[in-house]
Order: sequence, then C-alpha cells, then structure tokens
Amino acid sequence: MTETLQKYWSEVGQQARAASRSLLKASTAEKNQALQLIHDEILKNVDEIISENQKDCDVARGNSLTEAFIDRLLLDKGRIETMAQGVVDMIALPDPVGEITDIKPRPSGIQVGKMRVPLGVIGIIYEARPNVTIDAAALCIKSGNAAILRGGSDAFHTNQCLAKILQNALFQTNLSEHSVQIVATQDRAVVDLMVTAKNYIDVIIPRGGKSLVERINANATVPVIKHLDGVCHTFVDEFADLELAVKVVDNAKTQRYAPCNTMETLLVHENIAKEFLPKIAEIFVVKTVEMRVCEQTQIILNEHEISTLMATDADWHEEYLGPIIAIKIVKDLDAAIAHINHYGSHHTDVIISEHYSNTTTFLRMVDSACVMVNASSRFCDGFEFGLGAEIGISTDKIHARGPVGLEGLTSQKYIVLGHGEIRT
Amino acid sequence: MTETLQKYWSEVGQQARAASRSLLKASTAEKNQALQLIHDEILKNVDEIISENQKDCDVARGNSLTEAFIDRLLLDKGRIETMAQGVVDMIALPDPVGEITDIKPRPSGIQVGKMRVPLGVIGIIYEARPNVTIDAAALCIKSGNAAILRGGSDAFHTNQCLAKILQNALFQTNLSEHSVQIVATQDRAVVDLMVTAKNYIDVIIPRGGKSLVERINANATVPVIKHLDGVCHTFVDEFADLELAVKVVDNAKTQRYAPCNTMETLLVHENIAKEFLPKIAEIFVVKTVEMRVCEQTQIILNEHEISTLMATDADWHEEYLGPIIAIKIVKDLDAAIAHINHYGSHHTDVIISEHYSNTTTFLRMVDSACVMVNASSRFCDGFEFGLGAEIGISTDKIHARGPVGLEGLTSQKYIVLGHGEIRT
Repeated sequence: MTETLQKYWSEVGQQARAASRSLLKASTAEKNQALQLIHDEILKNVDEIISENQKDCDVARGNSLTEAFIDRLLLDKGRIETMAQGVVDMIALPDPVGEITDIKPRPSGIQVGKMRVPLGVIGIIYEARPNVTIDAAALCIKSGNAAILRGGSDAFHTNQCLAKILQNALFQTNLSEHSVQIVATQDRAVVDLMVTAKNYIDVIIPRGGKSLVERINANATVPVIKHLDGVCHTFVDEFADLELAVKVVDNAKTQRYAPCNTMETLLVHENIAKEFLPKIAEIFVVKTVEMRVCEQTQIILNEHEISTLMATDADWHEEYLGPIIAIKIVKDLDAAIAHINHYGSHHTDVIISEHYSNTTTFLRMVDSACVMVNASSRFCDGFEFGLGAEIGISTDKIHARGPVGLEGLTSQKYIVLGHGEIRT
Repeated sequence: MTETLQKYWSEVGQQARAASRSLLKASTAEKNQALQLIHDEILKNVDEIISENQKDCDVARGNSLTEAFIDRLLLDKGRIETMAQGVVDMIALPDPVGEITDIKPRPSGIQVGKMRVPLGVIGIIYEARPNVTIDAAALCIKSGNAAILRGGSDAFHTNQCLAKILQNALFQTNLSEHSVQIVATQDRAVVDLMVTAKNYIDVIIPRGGKSLVERINANATVPVIKHLDGVCHTFVDEFADLELAVKVVDNAKTQRYAPCNTMETLLVHENIAKEFLPKIAEIFVVKTVEMRVCEQTQIILNEHEISTLMATDADWHEEYLGPIIAIKIVKDLDAAIAHINHYGSHHTDVIISEHYSNTTTFLRMVDSACVMVNASSRFCDGFEFGLGAEIGISTDKIHARGPVGLEGLTSQKYIVLGHGEIRT
C-alpha cells in the first residue's frame, strides 16, 4: 500500500462523508434536477463516451478478453440512450427520504415514530460494466446517499469519462460535487481500503460474478449487501394444478437462462412424479435443456425414452446460468423445504400447490429472500415488485432482503415529539 | 487455536443452525410456554444459582476485582426473581414472527408483500453480568432465533448453572434443546471463532463496555448490531421555552448519570445563553455536576460567580457516565447540528425549541439513531418506546437503529402470491 494511495483514499472518504451530510438536506426537487441534468449531459456527450469506451474495448481486445466480456464493456449509441433514459425514469419514483411512519403516543406523553433517512455513504464495487456506473450514481443520488464507485479497471477510460459527465451535472445543482465520486486509480489495493473503511463507508455493495462478491465479502468489515448466487427452486407439490405447474416451471427455467432468478433445481412430489415429469421433460427436450436427475426421475423418464444424466451432489448446489436443470423427486413437503434450506442460496424459491396449509407452511419455512406460490421465480425483480430500479438482490438477512431499490438504500431512525416530558 | 476448540465450536454452530431451522415452525404458544418454563425453572433453582454465583464472586474477590464489578456479577434472591419476572413479562409482548404486511397487487397479476421472519442464529457476547444470559435467551426464543451466548469468564459457574436451567426448560417443550446454547469453554479464542463464523451466525450483538464492543467490532466479519457509546446532546435553541428547557436539560443530565442515553453535552444558542445558562448552572452547582465549558460560557457564568472548568477538544467527544457535563455556546442551528454530527456518537440528540422549522430541520439533519424535540434524552429506551425489553441500543445504520427489541431481531422476506403468472 503506497502512501500516495492512502492519502488519495482518505481524501475521497472525507469528501464522501461531507457530501453525505449535505445530502441530508437535499430536497426531492434538487435530487430530481440532478437526475435530469445527468441525463442531459450523457446525451450531450455521446460521441466522447463512445470514443473513450473504444479505448477500453481496444485494450480488452489486445488482452484477448472474451467476446462476451467485450460485449458487456461496449457502449454504443443505443445503449447510452437506454442508460440515460434509466436516469430520468428514476425521477418518477417516490422519494423514500423523510417519510415519517408509525407515530404513536406513549403513556409518558411523548410520541414515538420513525423517519426514513439515507444510509450515508455507499461504496459500490463492480466489474467492467459501465452502465452500472450511471445506474448506481442515480440510485444513490435519489436516495440521498453519497456514492463511491469503483468499477473494473478494464472500463477505466469509460468510467473516467462518465465521472466527468457526472461532475458537470452536479456542478449545475446545489448538491455537493462529491455526492458521486468515481475512484480514479487503477490500483486494486484501493478495494481493500474501501471494504475496511468503517469511518467513511456505511455499506458496501459488490455487483458482479460470484468470485468478485466472495472476495469482497471475505475481507469486508464494512457491512455488505450482496447475493452470491441464485440457486432457485420450484417445488411441484402433490396438490399442484399440473397444467399450471408445467407453464410456470417452463417459464422459470427457459424464459431466460442467465438471470439469477432463473430456476436451477426442480423438486417434484413423488405422488405426482409419474404424471408430471414426462410432461415437463418433453418441453425440456424440445428446448434442449440438459436434465441432471435423481435415480427415481431417471427411471420414470427412461420409460418415456427421455434421456437424462445422473445428478451428483454438486448439482444440487449449482447455479448453471444456462440450459441445464437439476431434477429431484422428494417424498413430501418437509423434504422439499429441507432440501431448499440446505442446498439453496436463499434467493427465490417457489411452491406450486393448491393445498392451503402446504402453501402457508412453505411461505413460512423456506428461509429465502423471496418465497412464492404459483408464480415464476423470474418475477423476483425490482420492477416486477414495484420498487423501480434495483441496485441488486440481497440474500443477506440483515437490513435489505430481496431486490434492493431506493428504500433498501435508506434506514429508519427514531423520532420523538415531546412537550417537555421528563423521566421520573 | 486448538483442534478441540475448533471441533467444539463447529458442533455448537451446526446445532444452532439446525435449531434455527426448527424454530421457523415454532408457534407463539410454544415459544410462550418455553418462557413460562424458564421462569419456573429459575424459581425452582434459586438456591443452586446463588451457590454457583457465590463461587464466581469468591474467585472475583480473590482476583481483587472491584466492588462495582462484583456487584454486577452478584445474584441474590431479589435479583433472581426480577430476572425470572422479566422472562414471563415477555409472554405478553406481541410475536413479531409471521406478520405479513404491504401485500399489493402488481400489473402482472402477482401480489407482492413482506413476511417478518427470525434472523436465524444470534451470537451474543457480553461481560460478567449473568442477568444478560436470561434476558438474551428469552428475547431470542420469543423472536424465533437460535442463540449462542458467550458471557464473561468471571461468571462461568453462574452461566453454566443458568445453561442447565435453560436446558431443563427447553426439554419440556417442542423446541430444540439447542435453541439456546451457552458456550461451555473459558477459552477466549472462541470469541474469534464466533465473530467470523458467517456460516453459523447471522448477527453478533456485543453487550458491555466500549472496549469490549470495539474489540469485537474490529475483528467481526459477521454483521454486528451495537453501540459504542452514548455522547448525547441537548441543544437549547434561541426559540426555546426556557422553563421547559431547564426542566428537560436537568432531567437529561441528572436523573441518572450512568445510562447511555444520559446527556453529556449541552449546546446553547448564543442569543439566549446569558439568560439560560445561569438558570441551569445553578442546578448543576446544587447537584455538584462539574461543568466543562467553552470560553463564552465561562465568561457568562463567571459573572454569576459560578465556577467552571475550561473544556478541551476531548470533552466534546467524551461519554462521562458521571456528574460531569460539557457546555458550549453555538451561533445557530446549523452550528449545533454540525457539532452533533461531528462529535456525537449517533445515539440520541435533542432540540428544545418552539420554532417549527428549526425543529423539523433538526429532526431531519441530525444523523442519530434517535432524534427528539422537547423531551429528555433519557426516553430512548425499549420500554419507553413501547418495544418492550431490548437487547441493546444500536447506533449503526444498517438494519436496526435505536433500541433493539423483538422486531430488531427479525428481518422481512418478500412473499409473492401468484395464480400461475409467468414472465413474458
């Protein structure tokens, strides 16, 4: 760790803390104005963004990075416009800050309630996806938080260009120019400083692949809001409407393969396995979804001349993010719940059932951020839940759980309204 | 770290995790029955508790620990009965687990809401105050969490006796006997294992003096709910009702000196300083409260022949926990808020004012767990707020803030009620 880096970092940290204090008094109108200006500045600088982004893409190609990597890094006119649109869309979202709830009188005469306030300073560490820079900046501004953003070094030129745009926008407002800071060093040691900076950062949000999130989480002493992976289950109960089950299971697995809320493991009650499995397996065959199955499932599907692979224990833990599904027959609801709580990643899990008590037991007992009845796991999403843009999905239990939108970036403090009351 | 300790710890951790899963299905009646039985078992074993506690007190005396220390350690019949009563009192508190809120229909047809659920496994690390063992066990059971308790080694015999009582009570219920585990080793290395056991523990709550909390917080990778200290302020605004101000400031400082919600620093608007300061200072003189003051305050009080000490910068950071107060004159509301946000500990801060906008600005801008208008800071307390027993007061911003009662020991997961909806 060089002294220069330490000095740079403590400057960034102090500026962020000061900005977070001044953001406490920012009105909704001031924050919305900043969002409008960021949108405008992005559109004014499309050519410069593309040219800076080109530099990053050239370096990435020179370093023989994969086409998928470069595709995530690349910004063209359409993507830049979508990014800018996302910022103005946030203007319409309700401002969570200042909301006062649950004011109740107490026997002493005081009234006690809660006020929603920003968290303070949010550190976001992410990979070479420049759209995250703008999304995260906009979410933090709207929720009244100062942001310190550290994007992947492969997007360095793009991010520095976006930093300038954000600065230009903020300069035109009453908000502190340090409300959003983008780390201006490629030294990876800055990440170690960020994740342990309890005095400067209130929460760290890592966005990226499992290895990035694991690395950050292992070293962080600052609280982290994160999800590592999405090993989502659908359990088809013996009392399921099987037509509905086929439709929902198909959608949960095949509508899109890559999202974290896509189903990875299908659990089937043994009493309906013989009837249900061939129906859904035929669809998977047509859509060339590879099935990794338990022994009982294989026996049933063999009878229908549907070929499968034998699952290993590792398959029950696996987030495939592709056209592969693990399938297991379970003997009852309790076995399904135990499987999910043991092998799952506490993300999104679904029961398909028409049995009242089975659905309520499943809702209560499954220890996941989102538990659903008779719906596709693909619905676990900030927009689908009505939260608007999300900064990520949390599988932690402390603070925010599930899709983290503006409200997840705030906390509630107690307020007491008195009239001269004293304790006796 | 010995292999024996590692093995012991992983057994405790696995048992706690399993117990937390089975607690997910515990009914309110089952949890209340456990509380009743703990109460009964405590009262049945008063003599044994006293005799085991005597062993700890004898060792403490042999080690020349202070009388104050031994007083906190000591259990007599009265204290044991109070402890048992605290447990049955919790039966009357509403069960937070299972509460479903905010179910709203979405355009897709799904209904989205939240369900309150236990956090899972809570690790509590505390000093040689055996009453914490019973309080913490009861709060965790009622909120549906498994608990791992690690009390100060000076209370080892008492805590092992209380552990036996808790086990006896749990054996008579449907709850897992491992719902509450008391660490049965005096090896301090177990604390290092606890604070980094992300797989076994969902949250760590340290209870004790600042040095204990600081030590735990510095090393913890498991999320910590805590407060380090209570540097609480009262700001007497220029628009204060001065009679009310005298009454509330007196109460906030002198009703009890030791609690964390006692005021430590008094801030006074310069426009009313000459009128207000002599009034309050006379009370402090009578009650022999030492005043450490800014220069302006000293000049004013000198004119009234009231002697004071000059404050140093350290005084503005200090939690005296005794009959000492720091007093400073500030030029306006902004200066008061800036002082509190800079020097305070984000615990409880109060404005005394009749000016509408000043009170609303103070409520919004002061970055503390509890912000009050015209009331004594001493009200920041679980019972006074209507939360019932508290496990502590949090000055963190993530998750629970302020007094942490049963609700603070839970989280909310999303639930989705569908009818076969799929994403398109």
